[in-house]
Amino acid sequence: MNYEAFFQVELDALKEDGRYRIFAELERKAGSFPRARHYAEDGVGDVTVWCSNDYLGMGQHRKVLDAMHTTLDACGAGAGGTRNISGTTHAHVVLEAELADLHGKEAALLFTSGYVSNWAALGTLAARMPNCVVLSDELNHASMIEGIRHSRAECLRFKHSDPADLDRKLAQIDPARPKLVAFESVYSMDGDIAPIAEILDVCEKHGAMSYLDEVHGVGLYGPRGGGVAEERGLMDRITVIEGTLGKAFGVMGGYIAASAALCDFVRSFASGFIFTTALPPALAAGATASIRHLKASGWERAQHQARVAQVRRRLDAIGIPTIDNPSHIIPVMVGDAKKCKMISDWLLEEHGIYVQPINYPTVPVGTERLRLTPSPVHTDGDVDKLVDALSEIWSQCALARRAMAA
Amino acid sequence: MNYEAFFQVELDALKEDGRYRIFAELERKAGSFPRARHYAEDGVGDVTVWCSNDYLGMGQHRKVLDAMHTTLDACGAGAGGTRNISGTTHAHVVLEAELADLHGKEAALLFTSGYVSNWAALGTLAARMPNCVVLSDELNHASMIEGIRHSRAECLRFKHSDPADLDRKLAQIDPARPKLVAFESVYSMDGDIAPIAEILDVCEKHGAMSYLDEVHGVGLYGPRGGGVAEERGLMDRITVIEGTLGKAFGVMGGYIAASAALCDFVRSFASGFIFTTALPPALAAGATASIRHLKASGWERAQHQARVAQVRRRLDAIGIPTIDNPSHIIPVMVGDAKKCKMISDWLLEEHGIYVQPINYPTVPVGTERLRLTPSPVHTDGDVDKLVDALSEIWSQCALARRAMAA
Ligand SMILES: Cc1ncc(COP(=O)(O)O)c(C=O)c1O
Ligand SMILES: Cc1ncc(COP(=O)(O)O)c(C=O)c1O
Repeated sequence: MNYEAFFQVELDALKEDGRYRIFAELERKAGSFPRARHYAEDGVGDVTVWCSNDYLGMGQHRKVLDAMHTTLDACGAGAGGTRNISGTTHAHVVLEAELADLHGKEAALLFTSGYVSNWAALGTLAARMPNCVVLSDELNHASMIEGIRHSRAECLRFKHSDPADLDRKLAQIDPARPKLVAFESVYSMDGDIAPIAEILDVCEKHGAMSYLDEVHGVGLYGPRGGGVAEERGLMDRITVIEGTLGKAFGVMGGYIAASAALCDFVRSFASGFIFTTALPPALAAGATASIRHLKASGWERAQHQARVAQVRRRLDAIGIPTIDNPSHIIPVMVGDAKKCKMISDWLLEEHGIYVQPINYPTVPVGTERLRLTPSPVHTDGDVDKLVDALSEIWSQCALARRAMAA
Repeated sequence: MNYEAFFQVELDALKEDGRYRIFAELERKAGSFPRARHYAEDGVGDVTVWCSNDYLGMGQHRKVLDAMHTTLDACGAGAGGTRNISGTTHAHVVLEAELADLHGKEAALLFTSGYVSNWAALGTLAARMPNCVVLSDELNHASMIEGIRHSRAECLRFKHSDPADLDRKLAQIDPARPKLVAFESVYSMDGDIAPIAEILDVCEKHGAMSYLDEVHGVGLYGPRGGGVAEERGLMDRITVIEGTLGKAFGVMGGYIAASAALCDFVRSFASGFIFTTALPPALAAGATASIRHLKASGWERAQHQARVAQVRRRLDAIGIPTIDNPSHIIPVMVGDAKKCKMISDWLLEEHGIYVQPINYPTVPVGTERLRLTPSPVHTDGDVDKLVDALSEIWSQCALARRAMAA
């Protein structure tokens, strides 16, 4: 076996498919988001980022940075241990209490990322509840899929956001078996939002636990930023709410919020929680500051929604095709991997606009897109430039527009 | 199914077994390591930490903190995206180059933790190389075991640090199959070090890839802190070197260093790398500063070894039983879960000395221990206090001592 040759062949195949990823090298400018430096082969240039998941720009918020600076100076860089062996700091305990409160749950449990929280929590729950069956929305995120796969529990996929299909599938399962229904609130590629109440109705009818990934909802929806479930008054009906500290909250980390016994159970048995260095206390403190700010302030959420609506309106007016959805994510549809990459390159080089092309396997072939995430830190001028550039390239490349808004 | 009752029963069983973990809530004092505040039910007190994996105290190093402060102010709190979608910053690229250089490899790839690097890299390599078989040291860390398990590749466990057993197992495998041998340099609970050269001989004889976890070696061994494999001049014979940024380097994160094609392959296919928010740039910058400092400075490593030798000598002199090993980890053997916890509680309450008890399942029943990690930030006075306290409790509890040093 020639290992090197094998890797090379596989990489060449990706390149031929147009699926090989090249990362844009950036340096965001705190205080001037969405501005960033872009490191290209021919030098460094300034760009405006239109695809960040720091949705509200909290990563540059004074309160977040202050908390991080202070904690860095007080406690040092890393946690220095796993949660069990010297790595639990006061900052972690405070953050877990803050998260439990955010979601109106008895407890919360921190992980090093949203990915790890899904993988570890679903993997542990599904593996340890005897004879558990998992019902998983067919468009669930990779981290949930891998966690379920890892558990080796039986898994049935239900049609995307389809409570009727879920109901049919649950009805066929022995009522005595533990059942875990895993789904998301905001699906991040199409920006659609799940019918959470209807799915919970079905869960309750069949005595199933519900597990909701609010990674793209927390901080952004609900009067205190508790997510879509908070906005809809549904948090207390959900068994486990999972979220990230790395998107709207602007830092890094993941968590679950649930009953005290459930969190303690995952804490006690999840390998991905136990056997890893804890988050640096400065990250925990930054996240706490961000959550606290967004609990009290609705300003960022209002600005965010207004900016999203404005961009949508402007794109609609010139017939740039987008997926219509009720969320903050605007997928501009291109439908071809090479064109998508080409437009992205052109925006970057000619206009200093950075939007990463989203191609297969992240989205299905034929639905390649530019995924725009307008934020409160974008200005009217930024929007003008973006819309003008998209209009120009749509004309130049004779890309399909949709019927103009009347 | 009553989910809450199920969790409660499982937790009660842990408690009855003496396996229920209670986390000590700390706040390390940067500038005064190993001093920390300890938050107990009855108030806050000062403790000396004797079980941190920030082995060199780099988490309070001025260069590390300065790099983090600067990058926080320049780039903000989080990365704001996955590596592919706006999350690759200049700081990540610089750190990956630094890591490749540290290990003399063509490339390196960053992950959010050492756990995720093992899980994702082993999971991807073993799953994607057709018909791969993994040879795994029987004492490998949970993160490696879970990655191998996740891959669903065939896995054979070989006897701990036993090249002859590995040789026998490899000899029985079809020579044409891809083979991956996974092991560690320093095993963190017993502190023993693998016979790396002998294992590599066997790998080479059978055309197997070698995967070495240097999580407890990087920063600590070798003229530039490249790990035990650097110290022994073996880095170029190892296919993949895996490490953490969360222990000797004092920050957080994990990585692999290997050929450019291998890193690019894992980069392109590993779900745990692709679908998660990148490390905050400030963490990447802090880790880079730490690695650079430890590449150039041998002072911390020398102080570390001297402090370890001193503590060992002092414990030997009074017959406190430890596992003899060539590393920086000193396991003080108690051999009983309840006693181990009791001693730890007593040290904390009576002497302000914090050493977490290590019980089953982290170590086998009957080998319960206090795992001491002396560091350059401990003083002679700290050592005196620790040794006196251990001597006192050993007498009080009539714990076995071993024959005094002659
Ligand atoms: C739906 C969903 N869940 C979980 C994650 C993982 O969260 P994190 O980035 O904190 O690892 C992501 C994206 O990264 C996501 O889109
Ligand atoms: C041998 C070994 N590998 C990997 C890890 C995981 O590294 P990290 O703490 O960076 O997740 C650990 C400990 O945490 C370890 O002991």
